[in-house]
Amino acid sequence: MTKNRLEAFSDGVIAIIITIMVLELQVPHGTELSTLQPLLPVFLSYILSFLYLGIYWNNHHHLLHTVNNVKGGILWANLHLLFWLSLVPFVTGWMGENHFAEIPTAVYGFVLLMSAIAYFILQTTIVKTQGKNSLLAEAIGRDLKGKASPILYLIAIISVFFHPKISQGIYLLVALIWLIPDKRIEKVFFDNDTNNH
Amino acid sequence: MTKNRLEAFSDGVIAIIITIMVLELQVPHGTELSTLQPLLPVFLSYILSFLYLGIYWNNHHHLLHTVNNVKGGILWANLHLLFWLSLVPFVTGWMGENHFAEIPTAVYGFVLLMSAIAYFILQTTIVKTQGKNSLLAEAIGRDLKGKASPILYLIAIISVFFHPKISQGIYLLVALIWLIPDKRIEKVFFDNDTNNH
Amino acid sequence: MTKNRLEAFSDGVIAIIITIMVLELQVPHGTELSTLQPLLPVFLSYILSFLYLGIYWNNHHHLLHTVNNVKGGILWANLHLLFWLSLVPFVTGWMGENHFAEIPTAVYGFVLLMSAIAYFILQTTIVKTQGKNSLLAEAIGRDLKGKASPILYLIAIISVFFHPKISQGIYLLVALIWLIPDKRIEKVFFDNDTNNH
Amino acid sequence: MTKNRLEAFSDGVIAIIITIMVLELQVPHGTELSTLQPLLPVFLSYILSFLYLGIYWNNHHHLLHTVNNVKGGILWANLHLLFWLSLVPFVTGWMGENHFAEIPTAVYGFVLLMSAIAYFILQTTIVKTQGKNSLLAEAIGRDLKGKASPILYLIAIISVFFHPKISQGIYLLVALIWLIPDKRIEKVFFDNDTNNH
Repeated sequence: MTKNRLEAFSDGVIAIIITIMVLELQVPHGTELSTLQPLLPVFLSYILSFLYLGIYWNNHHHLLHTVNNVKGGILWANLHLLFWLSLVPFVTGWMGENHFAEIPTAVYGFVLLMSAIAYFILQTTIVKTQGKNSLLAEAIGRDLKGKASPILYLIAIISVFFHPKISQGIYLLVALIWLIPDKRIEKVFFDNDTNNH
Repeated sequence: MTKNRLEAFSDGVIAIIITIMVLELQVPHGTELSTLQPLLPVFLSYILSFLYLGIYWNNHHHLLHTVNNVKGGILWANLHLLFWLSLVPFVTGWMGENHFAEIPTAVYGFVLLMSAIAYFILQTTIVKTQGKNSLLAEAIGRDLKGKASPILYLIAIISVFFHPKISQGIYLLVALIWLIPDKRIEKVFFDNDTNNH
Repeated sequence: MTKNRLEAFSDGVIAIIITIMVLELQVPHGTELSTLQPLLPVFLSYILSFLYLGIYWNNHHHLLHTVNNVKGGILWANLHLLFWLSLVPFVTGWMGENHFAEIPTAVYGFVLLMSAIAYFILQTTIVKTQGKNSLLAEAIGRDLKGKASPILYLIAIISVFFHPKISQGIYLLVALIWLIPDKRIEKVFFDNDTNNH
Repeated sequence: MTKNRLEAFSDGVIAIIITIMVLELQVPHGTELSTLQPLLPVFLSYILSFLYLGIYWNNHHHLLHTVNNVKGGILWANLHLLFWLSLVPFVTGWMGENHFAEIPTAVYGFVLLMSAIAYFILQTTIVKTQGKNSLLAEAIGRDLKGKASPILYLIAIISVFFHPKISQGIYLLVALIWLIPDKRIEKVFFDNDTNNH
């Protein structure tokens, strides 16, 4: 019960975040295809953020799958994550409307970095309530992706001052790393599901 | 569990998309009925998109009804569909505010086309996890509607350059094709439900 | 399952409608209490619409409580209701920003009238699938409120041309009629629930 | 069933309220970090309101956990609470955009006060349906926090006319009081859960 409501609330917030981002794509005045052109960077940053929020929803989904007992700590760690994710539409709009300028690109990376840290805190809080031999602890394993992402975001933030294109490349790279299905994790859960049902 | 969350998230996103579209209907300055007149094309395009999103929600609902095992591929195919649907408010506003001008009408058709392709990919991904003899594969059958729709959208996009009215007629026609209840599909599911419960 | 999703989707849409209405309350420029004064009619119309949407959600909740088998007809009758409800924020904003002027007040009544008709169609569709001796048919009984409301809305729309205050009084009256708990209906359902569980 | 839908609807409304608040953070024109500076008070008020809505969601969650029988009174007491919470984005924006000026700060406190009263009414309505010896009545106990909060809000509203900083300090203080986990309440519920399952 309790867990369902946590999932439902998180789903609601992420669904709204992912959808209100599209409001930054303001309907242009004019009927030519060329009037869409200035919207292109906003659109590209929308795609990037859509991917990131999709990845967060997807991972969040797997993470909570293992929770049995929602204590106060998990609720607040989860709200902390949702807080940083709720800033994604703002930084997406700022970065897109300024054609991926330096500072907005760095601030976008900062929000991604804080979201990654918030996710890590949530994950750690959940593992702590379950013990080190839990299914989740096993599934996470060494958590290479989770540890590499914040470092890559940091590099991206610093790279802005050399060339913003490097930062953007890193943001895309991290998204792709997460998009590639992690067979190992799915295997652990689905095998377990099959045993239980 | 997993499937419920996929449904809940998709419901959330579609519910938000269908509702924020109404924000394009900006409150006019003036208290005469005539001040509503310039809003008429926006309102008509709102009705059309409301129908389309309702159809997608309805079909999505039947499609996921048959899923037992949500794997990564289904999650991403579903997010891909939601991505294209999330662009519907934008193209609806653009087409409506420009009184169904050529290019916005064609771009509207393009988003419908991409949504239809995304739906087809999702359907194919689900059928693949279930096998060719599954309930869903049987219910879809030859899937005449699903195959005809993208072709009709393509025709509509091209027709814009002859007369946008043809394109609009085709959009309406496809919506009506889907609105007419597909007795055959419902029968398969409800018969099966009755047997199971 | 199917019914849960219908409820979840309707809840989502009504929750969004009720919440985006507040976006019409635009943050004023100025820090005096008097800068809130021009917002007063918008705020009053917000309260009225909040009440109506609350009533619809409440009744919708009781109505679907009795549904076992969601067929296509119910899905579309439900979407039809949500369509008219989705126009409530627009007419609320129009009526409020124009200080309850004649035409906006009449158009507000028109959307209430269409929503009431849509609700009646949904109710009739559900009763039809269940038979005349069903629990719902019994609970509705003569449905005095449901039949009186559209007539009162019609009177309100016509009254605008004599004095908009009459119309506003009627809108408030209908809301109050529905707010008063209908002990009889609750009794039928709760007694039945008690027997079942 | 009935209770799930009440929770789902409330979750939806709170999720939307918490997320549309971020729309007040309007994307600035300019690419310097300094262009973010005028947004700082809006951002700070966003954090404060995010905390408050998180606390309300969290407490609401525990409160409804104990409800078995959703009667009309609970539905309306819940909608009354959601009404006041729905005004939070408006007062948050007003207070933030005016750099925590006197009147907006007082009005912000007024909405918090009314929300606290609405929460108290909801809690009382639920306790009344369950009896004085219920689990909830026991968990609430003397409800020091619940009784202290409205008094503190009142003090904050009056303090505005001496110094708005005092009011802001009180808002932050009340949020922190609620953030600190109330071990006693969690204990009662989790012990009970363990016994039941």
